[in-house]
Amino acid sequence: MRIGIIGAGQLGRMLALAGYPLGSRFRFLDRSPDAPGAQVGEIVLGRFDDPDKLSALADGVDLMTFDVENVPGSLLHAIAARLPFLPPVSALEITQDRLSEKKLFGELGIATPRWQAVDDLASLNDAVADIGRPSVLKTRRLGYDGRGQSILTRDSDLESVYRRFDGVPLILEQFIDYEREVSVIGARSTRCECVFYPLAENVHRDGILRYSIAPFGDSQLQAAAEDYLQRLFERFDYAGVLTIEFFVVDGALVANEIAPRVHNSGHWTIEGAVTSQFENHIRAIRGLPLGSTEARGHSAMINFLGEMPALEPVLSIPGAHYHDYGKTPRPQRKLGHCTITAATPAERDAALDRLLALGGIDGPG
Amino acid sequence: MRIGIIGAGQLGRMLALAGYPLGSRFRFLDRSPDAPGAQVGEIVLGRFDDPDKLSALADGVDLMTFDVENVPGSLLHAIAARLPFLPPVSALEITQDRLSEKKLFGELGIATPRWQAVDDLASLNDAVADIGRPSVLKTRRLGYDGRGQSILTRDSDLESVYRRFDGVPLILEQFIDYEREVSVIGARSTRCECVFYPLAENVHRDGILRYSIAPFGDSQLQAAAEDYLQRLFERFDYAGVLTIEFFVVDGALVANEIAPRVHNSGHWTIEGAVTSQFENHIRAIRGLPLGSTEARGHSAMINFLGEMPALEPVLSIPGAHYHDYGKTPRPQRKLGHCTITAATPAERDAALDRLLALGGIDGPG
Repeated sequence: MRIGIIGAGQLGRMLALAGYPLGSRFRFLDRSPDAPGAQVGEIVLGRFDDPDKLSALADGVDLMTFDVENVPGSLLHAIAARLPFLPPVSALEITQDRLSEKKLFGELGIATPRWQAVDDLASLNDAVADIGRPSVLKTRRLGYDGRGQSILTRDSDLESVYRRFDGVPLILEQFIDYEREVSVIGARSTRCECVFYPLAENVHRDGILRYSIAPFGDSQLQAAAEDYLQRLFERFDYAGVLTIEFFVVDGALVANEIAPRVHNSGHWTIEGAVTSQFENHIRAIRGLPLGSTEARGHSAMINFLGEMPALEPVLSIPGAHYHDYGKTPRPQRKLGHCTITAATPAERDAALDRLLALGGIDGPG
Repeated sequence: MRIGIIGAGQLGRMLALAGYPLGSRFRFLDRSPDAPGAQVGEIVLGRFDDPDKLSALADGVDLMTFDVENVPGSLLHAIAARLPFLPPVSALEITQDRLSEKKLFGELGIATPRWQAVDDLASLNDAVADIGRPSVLKTRRLGYDGRGQSILTRDSDLESVYRRFDGVPLILEQFIDYEREVSVIGARSTRCECVFYPLAENVHRDGILRYSIAPFGDSQLQAAAEDYLQRLFERFDYAGVLTIEFFVVDGALVANEIAPRVHNSGHWTIEGAVTSQFENHIRAIRGLPLGSTEARGHSAMINFLGEMPALEPVLSIPGAHYHDYGKTPRPQRKLGHCTITAATPAERDAALDRLLALGGIDGPG
């Protein structure tokens, strides 16, 4: 079974590393011959929005998936007419637009922050009057890792903030003073089998995920999160891995956004669950039985940005696993992650503190 | 860190899959562009005994290792003079000749079956007179997976058996009526750190490993096996993974042979140990801290020869992990393996029975 992946970033690379043992082979589309995935599989060089390159990727593969989300849906419909393309283009298109995503959450009864569409300065003023401050002004499309966002405080000058967005369609969202951020990851196969991983708790700095801890271990929130994920699965007749990020407010889940793919907050599953999110994505889109999502002990995952820590001190930490994506270092670029697995939460937290110190990251304490 | 691997078989492929997260890159030497390793890394096409091809493999890598054992030592010394080559050529050379291996076991006080060198028909007659029958006549070199062996029984005609070996140097070994076969796998790093995996029990059919169960769980045999492995480590100033296969006779270990590499009986460590034998081999030859060899639950590993079982029924077994090496099927060819991990020996054995039935293999019962 040959699988084509649009994008040869770290997600594609980890999909391939998990998929090879299942007898899959991998071909990527990416602009760089040295992209993380290109180091472990075939590469078609080109832009994600070049229809000829997408077509070249499709040639000779049996199934297509993606590790980037910003490919125009119109191009993907053409691919999906030729061969299986999963997760479905409809799910990808919804998540490419925060407004569509928020509307969908509403339709499906999934709690969200209050929001208003912003198309011009007048509607921004109306939205601020309605939602109040602080609130968050975001681009509807192409925003990720905290880019394309601005927090509106009491002091913000709405006109100058609005101008910085250059007239692109926006959405204003209530600022959520959350207790925690958690995410749920699940997989649904083409045979409609569904599995759900334990919730992970995620800690961000500057809008970028710095570390996750799993399992989070709140059975009530777990059940609520799975219920929400199930609604999305059914809505899209979904196949593959799907993620929802939530704020926890007053002990309840408030959905932030969804990602129709394997997710950074699920990297702990490589060593910390019976079956990783990467393997379950491949199983799901190939229509194979899904693997157990049960946690193996207690895990923590830390992202490394700009610089990888030296291997020696990391590997000296009991239960530490090192994941270098093979990227050229650049400031704030995600270069890799490390996962801790331990028998108890206390052992995990002790190892996590050592790992955070190596990365120069402030811990929870 | 670029690592060159002589041979792109399943062992090389699994080394690469384990080494990528550590930031290693891989280049293989093999005759086929579709070899298991070539599907996941760069390939130099050529024969293992072609000095120009070995040199081409060495170009642009920082470190070399191997997944095949039958490369002439003379060629490897030339490589080892250019760049780090690990495990050491001296260890590989010893294991290329059963006679040298047996002599070494003797020197190091490691128990073996009784043996005699056989250089001609007269020495075969002498050896049989000394060792008795049943006994096993083996080629000294190039024997693996039961090839190049003949059992001498009361009825064997020594002259005709001897002729079938075409005059190559032989060794006669006492036939061991063993209770069990077990293997110990350990790693020693270039910094002299040593770790040892729990013993695995191995079940063979027709001289080929069919399944292994780990951990075997006999602390006395474990200690004896580690002691033997340690003697070999020190003798060679070893770096990398090293395996000894033992017969268990009257509750004691009798060494059968050593393999200076990752070993089929250690494939269970991918999911069944904190750190796999493949990752620890890479860590050991790169001089990195070694990872914990602790078992995660109870594992079983089954080889599949000639034909892989269908994915669906395997993946429906709780705790089953599928490993397809990407090879073209041929009768009796090792195409892949599956590993079961379970919380208890009873659960493991139940899943093992299901898996053995899928492979048409008789179980222990």
